[in-house]
Amino acid sequence: MYSKRRTTRSTFWTNFPVEGEARSAGETNAYRVTECHPLTRQQENAALARYEENVKNAFDSIETHLRDIAALRHDAEFERRAQALAVERLGFELPSHVLAKAWIDPLDMRALYAWCVFETYRRWVNDSYRQPMDVADNEREFAVFLQACGYHYLDFTPCADGRLAHAVRYVLRLPKTQVRRRAHAGAMFDVEDSLEKWVEVEHCRYRQGVPNTPDAPTRYLKVVMYHYCSSDPKHEGCAAHGSDDAKAAGAGLARLMEFRTAIESGFCCGASIDLLLIGIDTDTDAIRVHVPDATGDMVLNRYIDAADVYAETARVSPSQAHAEIIESIRQVSAAHDASAPNPGMTALIAKLLENNISQIDYVRQYHGGRYRDVGHNERFIGSGAGFDELQLRNLTYFAYLKTVEEGAIDLDVGVKIFSGLNVSRGLPIPVIVRFDYAGSVPQARERAVERCLRVGQAVQTRYADLAANGKLHVLMAIRESERDGGVEIIASTLAGESTGVH
Amino acid sequence: MYSKRRTTRSTFWTNFPVEGEARSAGETNAYRVTECHPLTRQQENAALARYEENVKNAFDSIETHLRDIAALRHDAEFERRAQALAVERLGFELPSHVLAKAWIDPLDMRALYAWCVFETYRRWVNDSYRQPMDVADNEREFAVFLQACGYHYLDFTPCADGRLAHAVRYVLRLPKTQVRRRAHAGAMFDVEDSLEKWVEVEHCRYRQGVPNTPDAPTRYLKVVMYHYCSSDPKHEGCAAHGSDDAKAAGAGLARLMEFRTAIESGFCCGASIDLLLIGIDTDTDAIRVHVPDATGDMVLNRYIDAADVYAETARVSPSQAHAEIIESIRQVSAAHDASAPNPGMTALIAKLLENNISQIDYVRQYHGGRYRDVGHNERFIGSGAGFDELQLRNLTYFAYLKTVEEGAIDLDVGVKIFSGLNVSRGLPIPVIVRFDYAGSVPQARERAVERCLRVGQAVQTRYADLAANGKLHVLMAIRESERDGGVEIIASTLAGESTGVH
Repeated sequence: MYSKRRTTRSTFWTNFPVEGEARSAGETNAYRVTECHPLTRQQENAALARYEENVKNAFDSIETHLRDIAALRHDAEFERRAQALAVERLGFELPSHVLAKAWIDPLDMRALYAWCVFETYRRWVNDSYRQPMDVADNEREFAVFLQACGYHYLDFTPCADGRLAHAVRYVLRLPKTQVRRRAHAGAMFDVEDSLEKWVEVEHCRYRQGVPNTPDAPTRYLKVVMYHYCSSDPKHEGCAAHGSDDAKAAGAGLARLMEFRTAIESGFCCGASIDLLLIGIDTDTDAIRVHVPDATGDMVLNRYIDAADVYAETARVSPSQAHAEIIESIRQVSAAHDASAPNPGMTALIAKLLENNISQIDYVRQYHGGRYRDVGHNERFIGSGAGFDELQLRNLTYFAYLKTVEEGAIDLDVGVKIFSGLNVSRGLPIPVIVRFDYAGSVPQARERAVERCLRVGQAVQTRYADLAANGKLHVLMAIRESERDGGVEIIASTLAGESTGVH
Repeated sequence: MYSKRRTTRSTFWTNFPVEGEARSAGETNAYRVTECHPLTRQQENAALARYEENVKNAFDSIETHLRDIAALRHDAEFERRAQALAVERLGFELPSHVLAKAWIDPLDMRALYAWCVFETYRRWVNDSYRQPMDVADNEREFAVFLQACGYHYLDFTPCADGRLAHAVRYVLRLPKTQVRRRAHAGAMFDVEDSLEKWVEVEHCRYRQGVPNTPDAPTRYLKVVMYHYCSSDPKHEGCAAHGSDDAKAAGAGLARLMEFRTAIESGFCCGASIDLLLIGIDTDTDAIRVHVPDATGDMVLNRYIDAADVYAETARVSPSQAHAEIIESIRQVSAAHDASAPNPGMTALIAKLLENNISQIDYVRQYHGGRYRDVGHNERFIGSGAGFDELQLRNLTYFAYLKTVEEGAIDLDVGVKIFSGLNVSRGLPIPVIVRFDYAGSVPQARERAVERCLRVGQAVQTRYADLAANGKLHVLMAIRESERDGGVEIIASTLAGESTGVH
């Protein structure tokens, strides 16, 4: 599809977002296959492919352009020429205080690289609000469907691994505004944090009737997504679980049950939640859904695989395919002597499988049926909360956290991944720390700024050696969540001082 | 009253708690004055004085006993004689791995000191559950009174300063189980944390009708207590606010209003809370209550001082005193052209003033009307959550926190205080990290252990120089909050390794 990361010169220089300009289609779809599953939404696939290509090319061309700029460093007019080239190719200027030192000090290419990653991130996030492109199911329609299935909230924890970063928008084709996404290494979410969220959501129903009133017979649904790699299961599975599928799935299931028990025993009046465990083959994006029984319990070997469903229903009409998927779910339960899940859960699972069929074809159409980057290939680490935009495969290693102290394990995994991806090649690790806030709440912005700076500083302290040598750079950004503006840069390590303004 | 801290040999060696043995009365009440305010509960005062004396003597005699033990260090039978002396005087053994090295290495007196502080803490906490001595208002009675005043929850933030550590049980004479106490340096509580608590409390009303149902016209009450020092206002006031009364009061009021605004703008349907700002003179424990107007607003110069109330009502009958206090509150509002607070708030303020009259007499009876230790004189730092027992003046510098990263400012203030109190005299800073958990929630204990170890490690990392030189020791403890057992020691820095078991 698009240029292999960082090694081939990109042909998509003009694909950075320009205000007011429509997105260019790019020379996409090299692998496009004509034959798709009857349920596949091909137009949606094309739009998603174009978007993924544009964003990733913007990141992946940075190295090429910086090499060209580096070649100019002994030029008498270096600064002017470098800026001209940057504006032409990258669409933005480079930090002049870095360029200005090039006559006397070695040019700080690591700082320039981090700057470009941060600036590219900022521009694409801002672009996503100027030109929203959510091709997933209509938000409202999905909210209605979810409630009809018996759920008023979808709390989703994928692994922090970048190969699951596109899980919501691409793999499951869900509208991102309708899903709370909190990634953790190994999908090992924090039970206390989820408990707090549950209380908040339930309180909102009681007080405000949002999304529905508490007498509505709906539940909070917690979903965990673990992953495995069918082409290299022993090495490219989940690092947090030693690349062991069964361990990853088992740990996810155990954590889910721990959360449910915490609610059932911590609150009275039949308080409970529903759970769902999903696995994903990161080579093909095909999911497997562990089918709960009528009481909501799951076991590891009772699941339905979307790749099988795809194969079994590839030659029938869409309506027949839908009916067959429902029947397949029933058969999985029956084959394991388990009661069938309730009709709402069955409908939800069927929906996820149907949506995933489009993604299976997406990988076939645009990635030859199996991604070339079966392993890690993230472009930056995202930590904090937010990051709702740019949910693209292998773009972000996302560690949800409120403090580095609590999120250290997730961050450590990310830094280890990037030590291989970037530091080993001389490139720095770009870490974006971000916290969003509700502008209508007074002082919320000040608190977000405070937290953002604190976490940014803690990241630098934890990885002090890397930071001191310019091998790790941190951008601190916030965003007002109630408006459609972009991110606001609070500070970064690129201004000469550790918390200087970017 | 009791021996001056750490300098005079205590005469109360036998006052450590012994299982099954009734508390000894001690030779207390040296300053006892016969004439008290008609509202003063003298019997309660005597019990509180006895308790304060016993606990503080247990901590303050440690140094004396260790000096005697140190004098034996070259004795051939040192270990045996030291243990015998420790058991006789302190009531517990010393860590033998420390004593065993005394023949070859210098005796680690700092480790022994920290051990004794931790052990004394553990024993008195455990004792407080074996022999509960809550002489404050009956819990249930106070809960009923509070709801009658229009409040279903009392969320109280004093300054972390040890001179306010006894605010709930002594100064305000409230049952500690009915008050959520979260101390922060300068009383600067975290708005997000309080928001979470508010949601949790309101949710509990909706879901469980506890403490009352949401249709009851009651509110959540957030109280802040700042402090000042009448004998040395420029130096012994609140360190977090530069010993500036007006600044301390103003900051407390601003934070309270920030919290209320966050609720009012973050939630619909008239969601709101009530606020109360209280000041305390740490010399005499007399409080000043800032009287809200009918809309709940307060200003800094509209307050009623318990010392004035005491003087004005000292010669009348209890019932007349009560009536005059109510009238005084009304007059304060009238004198400032402000509307009177609602009747429930008036009743609550009157109650607090009446309770505080007993404390004013307590200080007169047992501390000569003004504490001898007007400045800092804490015995250890408590950090984490819990610490509901041993709420005694200048015993604990208590920093409520979930992570060191978020609570660093509070901890830094505490470490600075103890650098003067202890490190300057060669003594280590004893830090107790504690987290309580609900035993009925599965895995809650494991999570408390995890958090406790994480925070304990972060404390050691933040103060690495002090910790490396044995000038800071950390005890990590948890407690099951639903049972009346004591604390469980998880780890400490005293076992030779940083996270070894105590």
